Order: sequence, then C-alpha cells, then structure tokens
Amino acid sequence: METLHARNEKQKEVKRLIRSVTDALYVLNGKWKLPILIALSHNHRRFGELSNDLPEITDRMLSRELRELETNLLVSRRAADDNRTKVLYEITEHGKSLHTVVLELSKWGIQHRKVIAGK
Amino acid sequence: METLHARNEKQKEVKRLIRSVTDALYVLNGKWKLPILIALSHNHRRFGELSNDLPEITDRMLSRELRELETNLLVSRRAADDNRTKVLYEITEHGKSLHTVVLELSKWGIQHRKVIAGK
Repeated sequence: METLHARNEKQKEVKRLIRSVTDALYVLNGKWKLPILIALSHNHRRFGELSNDLPEITDRMLSRELRELETNLLVSRRAADDNRTKVLYEITEHGKSLHTVVLELSKWGIQHRKVIAGK
Repeated sequence: METLHARNEKQKEVKRLIRSVTDALYVLNGKWKLPILIALSHNHRRFGELSNDLPEITDRMLSRELRELETNLLVSRRAADDNRTKVLYEITEHGKSLHTVVLELSKWGIQHRKVIAGK
C-alpha cells in the first residue's frame, strides 16, 4: 500500500516536473526554434543561409523566431569580420546547453515514427 | 581546414536531426501534451482528476489533447474495474518512453529560468 506521505511526495514531484517542462516549452514553443538552433549548431549562419537550411519557414517567421531566440539568450548576432553590413547568427553557450534535449527528442522522433508505422 | 567531405557529413547530420526533432515536435506540439503525460506518469486518472491536476486547461482543450494523445498511442482509455461508466486514462508503454525527454526538458527549464533571472 502506498502511504499518504509517498503519494504526497509523488504529487509534489509531478507539479515540479510540470512547472519546469512548461518553462522549457514556453521558450521552445512552435516548430521552428529547435530546428533553427540545430542549423546553427555547427556553424554561424547568415539570414539567407538559414532560410535555405529551413526551406519551409517564411522570412517573416524566421526573423520573428530569431528575435525571440535572441531575447532568450539562445542566439546572438554579430557583424561578419570581413563585411560590417553582413550579420551572422550564432548559437550561444546557453543555446548549446539544449544539445541533450535535442538528441533525446531526435531519438524519440525516430522511435515514434517506427511505432506509428507498425500500428 | 574542414574538408568538403566532413562539411557534407555535418550538413547531412543537421538534416537528419531537424527531421527527427520535427517529427517529435509534431506529436508533442502545444503546451499541454507533456504536462498531461507527466500527470499520468504515476497513476491512471479520470478526466476530472486530470482537469484538477492542470487547472489552466479548459475541458474542451483537455478532451482534444487526450484524443490526439490516444491517436499517437501515448495514452489509452479503459473502463474503471468498479464502475463501467467511469473512464480511466493511462499512459502507454510508448508514452513512458518519453521519460528521458521529459527529464532533460525539466533540467533545462530549471537552468533556463536561472540564466534569464541572472540576465
């Protein structure tokens, strides 16, 4: 039998998990934030390059998503060394801290596709 | 210097990651799917109990989200043993396979809150 104490502890743990996962989802909402960060994970990119990496996103949406990623300290912008009118987007250290989340989501996405295919 | 081959391999890896993460996000979209799965992680729940666990979700939305979770084999429904008119929602084995994703998102959510607070 589960004691009342154990049940309360579980309920508290559930609340904590819901809160922190909700915090994370609030920042990573929508379908583009993580793909943009993945596209930036190996290399800084110019706006046009990102737009090529993610052909389905509109420029308007890409620009909005980049602004939100900057606000949340996940992406930073700087002028290219060789050309001060060119802007480069880079992933920040904080952005890189999403690496494990990305890998786990990727593994799960592959597995989910198999489960649904075998349904 | 990075070889052309190495760069191509990286680009392929980026594309693979974007595709599998997009697959995962497609299923987990919105702010409620993971919180519902967390609420079900320790215990089956009735509709009204889930509604109490997640006070901000409307009944209409909860019912829609539960249907989508069922379609994706993450949640199942069964009649309560003691009362055939009562419906219980349970997390499936496939739903439980999101455990690591949930833990990593939770850790990241906690860390992100600290980073933003120190901004």
